[in-house]
Amino acid sequence: MSERAKRAIEECRLIATMSEEPGRTTRRFLTAQFHQVHEHLRLRMEDLGMIVRVDAVGNLRGLWKPAGASDKRLILGSHIDTVPDAGAFDGVLGVVLALDWVQIAKDISLPLALEVIAFSEEEGVRFGFPFIGSRAVAGRLDPSILACKDAEGTSIRQAIANFGLDPENLEDAFAGQHALGFVEIHIEQGPVLEAEGLQVAAVTGIAGQTRLDLTFIGHASHAGTTPMHLRHDALAAAAEWIIRVEALAFKTEGLVATVGKLEPHPNAGNVIAGSAALSLDIRHVRDTTRKIAVDELLEQANSIAGRRGLKLEWIEKMEVPSVLMDDRLTALMTDAIEAAGFPAQVMPSGAGHDTMIMAGCMPTAMLFLRSPGGVSHHPDEAVREEDVEASLQVGEKFLQRLAAEVR
Amino acid sequence: MSERAKRAIEECRLIATMSEEPGRTTRRFLTAQFHQVHEHLRLRMEDLGMIVRVDAVGNLRGLWKPAGASDKRLILGSHIDTVPDAGAFDGVLGVVLALDWVQIAKDISLPLALEVIAFSEEEGVRFGFPFIGSRAVAGRLDPSILACKDAEGTSIRQAIANFGLDPENLEDAFAGQHALGFVEIHIEQGPVLEAEGLQVAAVTGIAGQTRLDLTFIGHASHAGTTPMHLRHDALAAAAEWIIRVEALAFKTEGLVATVGKLEPHPNAGNVIAGSAALSLDIRHVRDTTRKIAVDELLEQANSIAGRRGLKLEWIEKMEVPSVLMDDRLTALMTDAIEAAGFPAQVMPSGAGHDTMIMAGCMPTAMLFLRSPGGVSHHPDEAVREEDVEASLQVGEKFLQRLAAEVR
Repeated sequence: MSERAKRAIEECRLIATMSEEPGRTTRRFLTAQFHQVHEHLRLRMEDLGMIVRVDAVGNLRGLWKPAGASDKRLILGSHIDTVPDAGAFDGVLGVVLALDWVQIAKDISLPLALEVIAFSEEEGVRFGFPFIGSRAVAGRLDPSILACKDAEGTSIRQAIANFGLDPENLEDAFAGQHALGFVEIHIEQGPVLEAEGLQVAAVTGIAGQTRLDLTFIGHASHAGTTPMHLRHDALAAAAEWIIRVEALAFKTEGLVATVGKLEPHPNAGNVIAGSAALSLDIRHVRDTTRKIAVDELLEQANSIAGRRGLKLEWIEKMEVPSVLMDDRLTALMTDAIEAAGFPAQVMPSGAGHDTMIMAGCMPTAMLFLRSPGGVSHHPDEAVREEDVEASLQVGEKFLQRLAAEVR
Repeated sequence: MSERAKRAIEECRLIATMSEEPGRTTRRFLTAQFHQVHEHLRLRMEDLGMIVRVDAVGNLRGLWKPAGASDKRLILGSHIDTVPDAGAFDGVLGVVLALDWVQIAKDISLPLALEVIAFSEEEGVRFGFPFIGSRAVAGRLDPSILACKDAEGTSIRQAIANFGLDPENLEDAFAGQHALGFVEIHIEQGPVLEAEGLQVAAVTGIAGQTRLDLTFIGHASHAGTTPMHLRHDALAAAAEWIIRVEALAFKTEGLVATVGKLEPHPNAGNVIAGSAALSLDIRHVRDTTRKIAVDELLEQANSIAGRRGLKLEWIEKMEVPSVLMDDRLTALMTDAIEAAGFPAQVMPSGAGHDTMIMAGCMPTAMLFLRSPGGVSHHPDEAVREEDVEASLQVGEKFLQRLAAEVR
């Protein structure tokens, strides 16, 4: 039984009740409930002796600076916005545990400043534009995006002003030259650690991603009167390709490739599909591996279309390069994991995180906690007490090692 | 150049203008346009010296009885209702050519009575219940279906009464004991004859059909965070099965099997499909072949689901046995085709026709005409003049042979 882990979980569940919607957790960027969360976290930070402020994009920031320490600081944090009908731990757990790391730092008299950031926006739900909080901290928020509007017609600029902040003062959010690096603690949001019986892992990088839309175009015809050899069946072509996608991903270490969307036309039981539109989502932590896979899959799609007398159309919808974590910080993290008595596991992240943006301006590392059932973005999202405790033990070892190195 | 073929095609195109919708051909059972078509065909029949009547379900019937011939008659015909936005030849061509066969019979002084029926309903568009016309003639129209209503709330009974007919007098439509058999001339509605460079063929039977709905049930999960070996991807399972369906149909002579409908859920590019619902339409002229194929495909679906850790649910939506044509009449037809100078081709029909119903009470045969591009149920539906001429030459040989046999 870990009292501190239990308390951290309870705190996440409490914050989950600060929601736009009664009975479920939905907390979009700078909605009224942000004031509630800020109020709660501000008190927590002040109790820890931190200097608290809210920057120009609504990131709540607390600085813990021990006597005699320089301004050089390790930044810790994650986001406090959520998807609609969210769980209690995605993002919020990383903020709550960062505060526990500050408590640990105090307990062990760590001679190093720590800044905790509760990022205001990561999910992109309200404005369809993700990472507003971390982009501002990383100095990578293009001011022109402040004109983006939400479904009610409110711009990001207006939302910031409505919250009582100054949208013209973006540079106020920039982390500046005092940052030693950034560490994010996050639930895995996938089933890997659970499947391998592990509690925590250091993240090697955030996988790069390509998203394609493809359409096989054949001829719609009568399911009863068209013999097999005279068909140009777009759905059968799509099916053949889906199997190739899966097979290539299975044989390529670390590659995930998914066809999640498929729309045959006319989509009627007694008509051979005249066209089939489908999506490809393909990710790997090494960009070259991903690009070679995309090329091979497009070649296979073309070859399937050619052999079946179909046309293939495709368009690249998204291409995001991978982001690698800092080798040194990640080595400190795996050392810390081992020193805390756990296997020194590393793994890539298949999902995007604030760390991905922060990596553009400072060294970064991430610590993943096991996600029971791999569930995330769902009210059933959970975290185990023993895994939270493990992450705190890792935190102590990590902070000690980092302080020793910086000194 | 065949004047009579040209005229027949023009007549079909004229009848196509008798439509519920301006600019396109839509003519549902007993709508106002039926009066127009009946008026046109009645004049044609009377010009040929036929005795004309409309039976209780709105079938227009003309009897040609040469002097001295008995009441024993060959019935010829097809339907005059259409699908929405139809072509000009599905059904109607069979009625128009039946009248040309009567002209031929007159020209060669055939000593045999012929009855031509323009069936009032085959497509099932208005009441969702097909073959009303031929069911009544075959004595197989269950009176309880007269209560079925169309989209406007009009029952079949009321539609018949509104047309000026007596819905209580169904037995008036029954073909009775005078029928020698039934022959339907119809466009193929598929690409087979065109692909083989043939103009006409005798039909061996109407394929039996099974329709299934299946659902593979897996686990929806994140496309980025779920490694390949921890997936339960319902869409990948569906794709694997679609390929098996296609492969089995290719290796089974005469089998057609189609997955035309597929609905993954949630059908989003970045989510591994948690379920995938799909249809199977499978047809063969031999019922045992079809049933063995259905069993094998269900076994494969179960095995795919089992291997992938998914659940399979399925339900049989339709099971219609095949209907074989009469051997003797079909042999006369192939003899006639050959005697007219064409290859004695036979083929099954993958689609249903009035003949399928008529076969329940008398010997039947069908003659298919090549469908350019295999197109049907579409404004582009067509027929070639030389194929129409071929069918008339076959008609003359067929009638001569039949009369000789009956005598």
